[in-house]
Amino acid sequence: MFDKYIYVERRKKLKELMGSGVIILPGNQESPRNYRGNDYNFEQDSCFLYYFGIDIPELIGVIDIDENKDYIFGSDYTIDDVIWMGDQKLIKEYAIDSGVETFIEMTYFNDFIHKTLKKERKILLLPQYRAETILQLSLALGINPHYIDNYISEKLIKAVVSQRNIKSKLEILQIEDAVNITREMHLEAMKVTKVGMKEYEVVSALEAIAKKYNASTSFFTIFTKNGQTLHNHFHGNTLEEGDIVILDCGARNKNGYCGDMTTTFPVSGKFSPKQKDIYLLLIKMFETAENLLNPGINYKEIHLQVAKTLAQGLVSQGLMKGNPDDIVKSGAHALFMPHGLGHMLGLDVHDMEGLGEDFVGYDKFPRDSQFGLSALRLARDLEPGFVFTVEPGIYFIPQLIKKWKQENKFLEFLNYDIIEKYIDFGGMRYEGDFVITESGARRLGNKMPKYPEEIENIMKK
Amino acid sequence: MFDKYIYVERRKKLKELMGSGVIILPGNQESPRNYRGNDYNFEQDSCFLYYFGIDIPELIGVIDIDENKDYIFGSDYTIDDVIWMGDQKLIKEYAIDSGVETFIEMTYFNDFIHKTLKKERKILLLPQYRAETILQLSLALGINPHYIDNYISEKLIKAVVSQRNIKSKLEILQIEDAVNITREMHLEAMKVTKVGMKEYEVVSALEAIAKKYNASTSFFTIFTKNGQTLHNHFHGNTLEEGDIVILDCGARNKNGYCGDMTTTFPVSGKFSPKQKDIYLLLIKMFETAENLLNPGINYKEIHLQVAKTLAQGLVSQGLMKGNPDDIVKSGAHALFMPHGLGHMLGLDVHDMEGLGEDFVGYDKFPRDSQFGLSALRLARDLEPGFVFTVEPGIYFIPQLIKKWKQENKFLEFLNYDIIEKYIDFGGMRYEGDFVITESGARRLGNKMPKYPEEIENIMKK
Repeated sequence: MFDKYIYVERRKKLKELMGSGVIILPGNQESPRNYRGNDYNFEQDSCFLYYFGIDIPELIGVIDIDENKDYIFGSDYTIDDVIWMGDQKLIKEYAIDSGVETFIEMTYFNDFIHKTLKKERKILLLPQYRAETILQLSLALGINPHYIDNYISEKLIKAVVSQRNIKSKLEILQIEDAVNITREMHLEAMKVTKVGMKEYEVVSALEAIAKKYNASTSFFTIFTKNGQTLHNHFHGNTLEEGDIVILDCGARNKNGYCGDMTTTFPVSGKFSPKQKDIYLLLIKMFETAENLLNPGINYKEIHLQVAKTLAQGLVSQGLMKGNPDDIVKSGAHALFMPHGLGHMLGLDVHDMEGLGEDFVGYDKFPRDSQFGLSALRLARDLEPGFVFTVEPGIYFIPQLIKKWKQENKFLEFLNYDIIEKYIDFGGMRYEGDFVITESGARRLGNKMPKYPEEIENIMKK
Repeated sequence: MFDKYIYVERRKKLKELMGSGVIILPGNQESPRNYRGNDYNFEQDSCFLYYFGIDIPELIGVIDIDENKDYIFGSDYTIDDVIWMGDQKLIKEYAIDSGVETFIEMTYFNDFIHKTLKKERKILLLPQYRAETILQLSLALGINPHYIDNYISEKLIKAVVSQRNIKSKLEILQIEDAVNITREMHLEAMKVTKVGMKEYEVVSALEAIAKKYNASTSFFTIFTKNGQTLHNHFHGNTLEEGDIVILDCGARNKNGYCGDMTTTFPVSGKFSPKQKDIYLLLIKMFETAENLLNPGINYKEIHLQVAKTLAQGLVSQGLMKGNPDDIVKSGAHALFMPHGLGHMLGLDVHDMEGLGEDFVGYDKFPRDSQFGLSALRLARDLEPGFVFTVEPGIYFIPQLIKKWKQENKFLEFLNYDIIEKYIDFGGMRYEGDFVITESGARRLGNKMPKYPEEIENIMKK
């Protein structure tokens, strides 16, 4: 938890942005694994964490704009609990640390809502992703939980996003801390990876690094020799000579801030010539983006420039043909990179994704529907304080290649006979985290290996 | 997943136990951390796993006793999903592997329930612990989710418990596999623990062992120098010379079976004389239980015999006074061991706790209300095939000692002036997993260190 004035200021700003209403901001409850009491590692809702900073379950925050008063609802532990759980700080004390003067016992929450509605005040809710919270709110509001989306305030979403999209110096330091832990997870993976290991053995070692820093992972670690499968959560393969692996993982530090980084490296410790050609193109794509990052430029424009670098490279390697500008316009390059170039990063690894991807990453609608671009999560004009990922990829996805070939798609741009020679190639991705500054951009974290020699050197050790 | 006849047989037995009705057995859904799509590690519901064996999210199983027909409801991935997730096995194929012939698309589930109700058939539900499932069932059944408990079948709970409480040979092998991974987690912790480390650094190393075997943890690892706090989830202390630590952790193996073991060891690698005295009494308690385990004996009786060993030991060490039988009858010993001796173990670490602790562990009601005994989870006559933990503990809980002393509680049995010399002692627990056989009992897993010298020897390495 930071100093209380930080939370007071954040809530003050939100009040100004909204003008009126009563914002109900539930914290997360425990999430049961296989019975109540055997819970997943508690993770606080990022909006609650941002505006109140209290990292314990079963609280509700209220920001009453009309009466300029904030509340924390919760239930203190009993003396019996203390015997099992040790001395516990009172929730009232947590509330004070958050700059909230009024703590109310949770049993009065429904009554509070009742009175607020009776006063004909406007209740403001954000979208809810946890079913426990939906049940709790539906009971208090007397609404059908299956229709809770009808009660979400779009104005509130936009206000929160406009505030949270700009990271403060304090937040950038926190994200950088998470990025540095993430970096060590990657270096550890490169060091321990050896031919003959199971993927999960490497995951075991790299996730231990996060825990060693009292951090957790910011999302389910992707570590796979089948990197062409973008959302690959399987860790059961045996690593073999000649395989390349994608590692996409991140740390969530003890204050909730996230890192997100991807590297690609050869299991044997040395890229083959064929792998190196594709890998160097990948790094060229990354550097295309790096060089363009500046306040004012639209991120979709950068995505398209990266796509052009991809097209140029694949034309020169014989996998594509034609004019790179025409290729990018057509969307044919998306066969090799069907995802977007990046997303916002903060207290969530896809920052505020629970509020809706479009609200976070877009200010002009609708989103482009072209395959590839349709998966772009960020397409705003970049502003100082934006923190986001840059993550170009090059994949050979057998199912997609087969489908497009059957449909005779983009025959003018795609050399299917050559592409098919890469059908078992797999996939590659490289990802770093950036902040937009007043005059440009900065990659967060200590120096990461990027070029093949750098990676091969680490793997030698 | 095991051979399909296993699931067919299990469902057949349940049908026989129930006689009639339509059992709705929802599998678990994904559990979102901070937005939908960023989920916790998926964990299947143990009843679904037991009767259907399919370890993927978003399925519902139906056991229609009246028409002797089983169903799996689910939704297959689309071609677009396959591009992101790789080739996926069809749910129909999973259903066949589970011996279920009828797969129905999930969109027809509500319609299926509607028709079943129209036929005036009895719908049978188990208690639900996940809010997503409660929302799903309430929609299908047209009931208020806050009143779902009204629709739970106690007869079904009892039938499931009677079936699952007796572990088959296959299950015992699986639990033993989990116990052996758990054992390695403990040995690793003993090896890496050093003065000056943070608790979370040790946790990092020991949890990596689970992952190294493609297992997860069966519950939140307790590793603390404040073992007197029974549910201590804090890992942030620095380990100091003279500290003793409690490690209570378990592996959940890839088939979902759980281990659960506790050890207590000195951070420095050597027990002090004072620590050794208490520790040896703890092991005597464990061995009291071990020697009594037999088919036919009631587990509450064993708990009470262990309490007597505790009382005898503390009398001889001067912390208590009076006749041990009188002490146990009074409940005064529970100052030092306020919890129960053990619980059932299986596909859940507290097996089937989601169905209700009393249903699983008791056949005579009500539960004893005496402090200490009231926390006993298992009080059945032991039967061959029961798998459960034995976990005596000795704690010096400052808050509890203070409270009892203020209340002048059990002055005839408790030497408060001597007890107060142990106020900073902390706590100790030792736990092993057992199966009841036809002729006695067997501790599961390879040999675990138990005596001080054994532990000290491992810590030297």
